[in-house]
Amino acid sequence: MSSNAQGSSGSAAQRHRVVIVGGGFGGLHAAKHLGASDYDVTLLDKRNFQLFQPLLYQVATGALTIGDIAIPQRVVLRKARNVTCLTATAYDIDTDHKVVRHEFGETPYDTLVVATGVKHHYFGKDEWRAFAPGLKTAEHAIEMRRKIFGAFERAEMTDDLKLRDELQTFVIVGAGPTGVELAGAIGELAQKVMVRDFRRIDSRESRVLLIEGAPQVLPAFDEKLRVAARRHLEALGVQVMTSTMVENVSAEGVRIRKGETTTEIRARTVLWAAGVRASLFGQILAERLGVPLDRGGRVRVEPDCSLPGHPDIFVIGDLARLTDARGREVPGLAPAAIQQGRYVATTLKRRAKRKTALKPFYYRDWGSMAVIGMNRAVGDLRAFKTTGTLAWFLWAFVHIRALIDGSQRVRVFVQWVWKYLTRHIGDRLVTGAPTSTKTLRAERLGDPPSMP
Amino acid sequence: MSSNAQGSSGSAAQRHRVVIVGGGFGGLHAAKHLGASDYDVTLLDKRNFQLFQPLLYQVATGALTIGDIAIPQRVVLRKARNVTCLTATAYDIDTDHKVVRHEFGETPYDTLVVATGVKHHYFGKDEWRAFAPGLKTAEHAIEMRRKIFGAFERAEMTDDLKLRDELQTFVIVGAGPTGVELAGAIGELAQKVMVRDFRRIDSRESRVLLIEGAPQVLPAFDEKLRVAARRHLEALGVQVMTSTMVENVSAEGVRIRKGETTTEIRARTVLWAAGVRASLFGQILAERLGVPLDRGGRVRVEPDCSLPGHPDIFVIGDLARLTDARGREVPGLAPAAIQQGRYVATTLKRRAKRKTALKPFYYRDWGSMAVIGMNRAVGDLRAFKTTGTLAWFLWAFVHIRALIDGSQRVRVFVQWVWKYLTRHIGDRLVTGAPTSTKTLRAERLGDPPSMP
Repeated sequence: MSSNAQGSSGSAAQRHRVVIVGGGFGGLHAAKHLGASDYDVTLLDKRNFQLFQPLLYQVATGALTIGDIAIPQRVVLRKARNVTCLTATAYDIDTDHKVVRHEFGETPYDTLVVATGVKHHYFGKDEWRAFAPGLKTAEHAIEMRRKIFGAFERAEMTDDLKLRDELQTFVIVGAGPTGVELAGAIGELAQKVMVRDFRRIDSRESRVLLIEGAPQVLPAFDEKLRVAARRHLEALGVQVMTSTMVENVSAEGVRIRKGETTTEIRARTVLWAAGVRASLFGQILAERLGVPLDRGGRVRVEPDCSLPGHPDIFVIGDLARLTDARGREVPGLAPAAIQQGRYVATTLKRRAKRKTALKPFYYRDWGSMAVIGMNRAVGDLRAFKTTGTLAWFLWAFVHIRALIDGSQRVRVFVQWVWKYLTRHIGDRLVTGAPTSTKTLRAERLGDPPSMP
Repeated sequence: MSSNAQGSSGSAAQRHRVVIVGGGFGGLHAAKHLGASDYDVTLLDKRNFQLFQPLLYQVATGALTIGDIAIPQRVVLRKARNVTCLTATAYDIDTDHKVVRHEFGETPYDTLVVATGVKHHYFGKDEWRAFAPGLKTAEHAIEMRRKIFGAFERAEMTDDLKLRDELQTFVIVGAGPTGVELAGAIGELAQKVMVRDFRRIDSRESRVLLIEGAPQVLPAFDEKLRVAARRHLEALGVQVMTSTMVENVSAEGVRIRKGETTTEIRARTVLWAAGVRASLFGQILAERLGVPLDRGGRVRVEPDCSLPGHPDIFVIGDLARLTDARGREVPGLAPAAIQQGRYVATTLKRRAKRKTALKPFYYRDWGSMAVIGMNRAVGDLRAFKTTGTLAWFLWAFVHIRALIDGSQRVRVFVQWVWKYLTRHIGDRLVTGAPTSTKTLRAERLGDPPSMP
């Protein structure tokens, strides 16, 4: 029994309650590592599934289907009998009564772990969101896919050459890994994968523009890799526009500025891969506890991932701002969130056993990679830098290995091998309700009464 | 050149135009078999993909993901260079000017093939649709999946025992193959697949009710198989209620009547697998051409699938009402639609070559099957009747063989084998926008101004 564990407010018979808000990489791994402990763990998430976000761009561009990269948390945690998964949107924390408030009521905690991540940030221009979807959720990926493949469908349909050009112009804002991967994938769709699929348009005439404010793509990567990434992108027909700012986004396209020159680009598909900002829970914690946030709304945490002055509240993953034991800023990446989730779980298990605290958290950096098109990647690994096909194989290996569920591993592997061998593609469905015949008739013909 | 083909209105230089409305089994196979002919073929569909409808219930119940059973028509028809696929909703046919009107304009035809199928029919009670989704489209399957798995999530969340019971009650209306398959799959989820996934509820306490107006399930099947199907269903905990009418459907559940007894069943998930009715194009043809419809709104066609008095217009698939050359009513099944699509394509090719007309269409009936749970099925095949696991293997073989795309075959096969070996499950995601934290805060806390 862990009733003596720090922070327990229950009777000796009641187990220490850990509530984790957010079931992404950080929260899910914290829950998993608290499995088979004496803690009574509750994982709260808006959605009933965890998403393998690094592969979300492959869903948006039709290479994978959403079920390939998502899995219900309760399936992952099936054997962790002390962990309960609840699907509910949390909206407040009451630190006096030690409860998390959510849409269906409240859940009491003794220890709280907040892992709600980040969302897209439109540089304060929230009105751009309607025209330029980001890529953080399953719905985002399906929306992007609808935009991309819907644009090709419309282009094939229309006889208006100006409209056709606008439909065949794709603008990606932001050249971090997601932007680079999106641009590469769309370039490859247009230049290689879909070449024989249309009759009236030539998919190779599509324009893919990648817009980045910094002087180079992949600002966080090594110089040699940035050059290689740009070369790989340009080989797929992507126009890379660096040192270029986005001044406006609308239904018609974007206005960009490079130095003193402003240009309007007419495009029906604009995709957002630029800024992120902390989710609302950063502000909720700041408001309730007065903890400091950084400029991006992230919560500054102690070296053990707890909140200053609140050893019973931890913040992990993209929402946490932490300089680790080696003096390195912990980046907002899946491996960092996973490591923090494990770290906090271990910390709690040691507390329960009254062992000494762990050393401060430090991030084991195995490097980062970005894939460009079907079989090229750049990898900034600890031991070496790599580009090209070898990098792609490494990337594929690392990602398949990281997918939690065995069945998903097999499926993603089959998809990729198939894609590699045949250049076929997994899921290009434009879903969502299409225009109904009945509605169209009512609109165009005035709904003749004989139609039911 | 086929400019002499019957019905051509163009000059000698212009190829004979065939327009196919609807890209399901019938339309897609007609287009495929007209590939590499001299016809200029256009396939019009609301959606850019064809759906393998017989497996849709597996998407609704989380065994497959939607990308597994859908494929863009233009990918299937990639090599058919004379076929153009257009994604647009058609809403009218002008037989004087020989054009199909659609949301983006009109497309002229010399020969027209209408293959728009059927939709759900709520016995004239369209208001039931909001509470009891059917299963004809990709969106329907995702909506059903959201209802089914969302109900289990809500049940795990709530402390209200009455609500929990309502959430754990699943009503399926109609015990044809789709209803039987749905009920079996949900029964299996509750009794076997999800048993260890919840902490507060016992999934085995769920009730699955299958309601059928006829005295037995699978009314179109052989007596022996009906008995076997019922036995298989009951082994999965499904309560089979035959000779039972549905009198009302609402957000709270259903009211049913058996003989003189009326019962209210409180259930949060009601699924519709009962009647179908012809799509609107039946009525459009009737209105424009005065052709006769049957009671279900289906179009009565000539023995060669053309319209009476209009040899340039064909109706195939579920929308067509046809007694075939052997005096047998052609059923609304995928194999019949495929055979009709091929038949019409062959008819047109023979016309182009001025060969004699084909013999009247007849349906080659290879039998029908229904699968119940993970590894049981009943098969009413021409040569023999079969039930149990052998029937399941046959069913799996037939369905995997019928999936058009090679990559999909491999994926579905991997999914099934995996499922069979591990009882894991493919895609139980509850998608669609969940409640947002921001909205909840605004609602419950009155949107404190410090929140962005």
